[in-house]
Amino acid sequence: MTQPFKAPKRLLMGPGPSNVAPEVLAASAQATIGHLDPAFTAMMEEVKDLLRYAFQTKNQVTFPISAPASLAMEAGLVNVLEHGDTAIIAQNGVFGGRMADIVTRCGANLVLVETDWGKPVDLDKVAQAIKAHPGAKLLGFVHAETSTGAVSDAAALARMAADAGMLSLMDTVTGLGGVPVLVDDWGVDITYSGTQKCLSVPPGLAPFTVSERAIQVVKARKTKVQSWFSDLNLQLGYWSGQGGRSYHHTAPVNALYGLHEGLRRLREEGLEASWARHAEAHRRLANGLQGLELDFVVDAPHRLPQLNSVWVPAGVDDAATRATLLNDYGIEIGAGLGPFAGKVWRIGLMGETAKDDNVDRLLDALAKVLGRGLKAAE
Amino acid sequence: MTQPFKAPKRLLMGPGPSNVAPEVLAASAQATIGHLDPAFTAMMEEVKDLLRYAFQTKNQVTFPISAPASLAMEAGLVNVLEHGDTAIIAQNGVFGGRMADIVTRCGANLVLVETDWGKPVDLDKVAQAIKAHPGAKLLGFVHAETSTGAVSDAAALARMAADAGMLSLMDTVTGLGGVPVLVDDWGVDITYSGTQKCLSVPPGLAPFTVSERAIQVVKARKTKVQSWFSDLNLQLGYWSGQGGRSYHHTAPVNALYGLHEGLRRLREEGLEASWARHAEAHRRLANGLQGLELDFVVDAPHRLPQLNSVWVPAGVDDAATRATLLNDYGIEIGAGLGPFAGKVWRIGLMGETAKDDNVDRLLDALAKVLGRGLKAAE
Repeated sequence: MTQPFKAPKRLLMGPGPSNVAPEVLAASAQATIGHLDPAFTAMMEEVKDLLRYAFQTKNQVTFPISAPASLAMEAGLVNVLEHGDTAIIAQNGVFGGRMADIVTRCGANLVLVETDWGKPVDLDKVAQAIKAHPGAKLLGFVHAETSTGAVSDAAALARMAADAGMLSLMDTVTGLGGVPVLVDDWGVDITYSGTQKCLSVPPGLAPFTVSERAIQVVKARKTKVQSWFSDLNLQLGYWSGQGGRSYHHTAPVNALYGLHEGLRRLREEGLEASWARHAEAHRRLANGLQGLELDFVVDAPHRLPQLNSVWVPAGVDDAATRATLLNDYGIEIGAGLGPFAGKVWRIGLMGETAKDDNVDRLLDALAKVLGRGLKAAE
Repeated sequence: MTQPFKAPKRLLMGPGPSNVAPEVLAASAQATIGHLDPAFTAMMEEVKDLLRYAFQTKNQVTFPISAPASLAMEAGLVNVLEHGDTAIIAQNGVFGGRMADIVTRCGANLVLVETDWGKPVDLDKVAQAIKAHPGAKLLGFVHAETSTGAVSDAAALARMAADAGMLSLMDTVTGLGGVPVLVDDWGVDITYSGTQKCLSVPPGLAPFTVSERAIQVVKARKTKVQSWFSDLNLQLGYWSGQGGRSYHHTAPVNALYGLHEGLRRLREEGLEASWARHAEAHRRLANGLQGLELDFVVDAPHRLPQLNSVWVPAGVDDAATRATLLNDYGIEIGAGLGPFAGKVWRIGLMGETAKDDNVDRLLDALAKVLGRGLKAAE
């Protein structure tokens, strides 16, 4: 017979999931209630309000998609793109590449603007692509590239799209809660995130917010959205608070309990305080890594504090080092993806993980595993 | 400031979610670990094995989709259908209608075979449709219609599809664990379910199993699957145990802890014992409902024990009755959907809910609310 699963104790310092607060785990372990129960739908309204705070938006259409963030990426694209539309996608890592793949699956024309991995999206190249493709419908970009740890100038990108009469779509899965994400100030049309990064909620849901301008585009479509599940026209019947809720799918009740508590905690701490905490943990880590002679992949001005990519030192076994950290020290750090596989470690300082004690614990373990000893950096 | 959410105490006797065992809630509240942690991937292998038991299948491709069952329905259809293919969909309730909608969104030709709500799928009509559409690629049907409580002859339908060289797709969201679901014996190609019905696990995941024959159809596609998230070619890189896992999306770690425990408990009880428990609870409920002069929507031979649809008696206010049950007795029963809205109550006896005590509690409350008093039925 299969035995009950006992989760080992880990300090999660990879690219997500991050450590989850006991309060969030306890909230999600409350007894399940019905997804149309008035007590539940009242909580959903609070979740929507809390998400508006996290995204700094007044967008009416703001809710958590009942699936991982990659489905939110897909939802954003399939709702506005129709066959024959043109979409410009800025790629500087794995997730821009995923957007590009989805664009082609929508039957839309893809204009791919590539920037080297580890760099922020090249604004000049994007401007050229917009100029070269008048009538393009959408500009998609990744604000916080989880595969590299580079942050791009989302405000500038959204403005370029708006100035050209295009919609903007922003991936800020790793950004939300860790660095400023100002959806309304920046004028982003479609924005999505994940729960398992700086919100410190278990993975499985995707915060999502859409501007009124983008909603009008969805409503003016000539053809049906190719995904039934992601069709905003149907989703809104359930998530909108007006005139009763129509059944769409059974909401993930317990996961939403957890998200409610995670967002509530973020609001209690305050966004500015959360951003400052992430920045401070990053400074402490960067100092320590310098002492260990570990080099950042991303130049200092473009580093996400919550996702630190460093080169695996010459002569050091990537997988063996990570396995030792996990098995002997209970610390998870992330591997590189794509061209960075085997070459890069990704050290996450997200949400609950972004604390001095955790940074020190990792630096101490890394020093021992690398057999170098901490050198003074200051 | 938003207060922590406190879930009210409910007895869940609607169409799902059902009551969740404390052991499952406790399992899912364990500390989150990484989705690529060896401890986690080992647990995933157990989940796959446990699902094979629940589905009574040896299908290698058996895993939980990280989203609600309606996305699993979509995944099943978009993976095998291409533009211009023909799909025959048997509809006898809400969910067959949803299948039909998705078929058109795939650009496939829809042949809809309609049976009255509350009846099992009409096998003769399906046979005629298969005969009239040689070369049709897929027959889709709902084994256990959650909107009506009718069970259809899935074995016969799957055989008809196979005999015609078609793939079969079966929705057994409400069936799995409550009545026999014999994927291999019946020869069903694509089967999906939900966690929040007779498995008594919180909503959010969708058990999914695909035959080797259907996998070959997916691999032989001429065009890309229109959904990136649901593309089995990509999903399998993560869920298959061989040759290392490629990153696809971040699995919903804590929800999977809960599913592991729920499936483990089902295996411990045994499928036959679980089916018998559901049948016994149904008999007890049916007797009591007869005493209350409440009439079933579905004829006795075609009733799902775990989902009991009864007509709202003449002169009784549907919504007010359900609200009183919820607010004064803490019991949730379900409303009717579509043409049954306002006319039908759906009483669920699923998973943990399928116990004599719960049946008695509902009958007692119903008797009081309807102001009739229990009449002796035996």
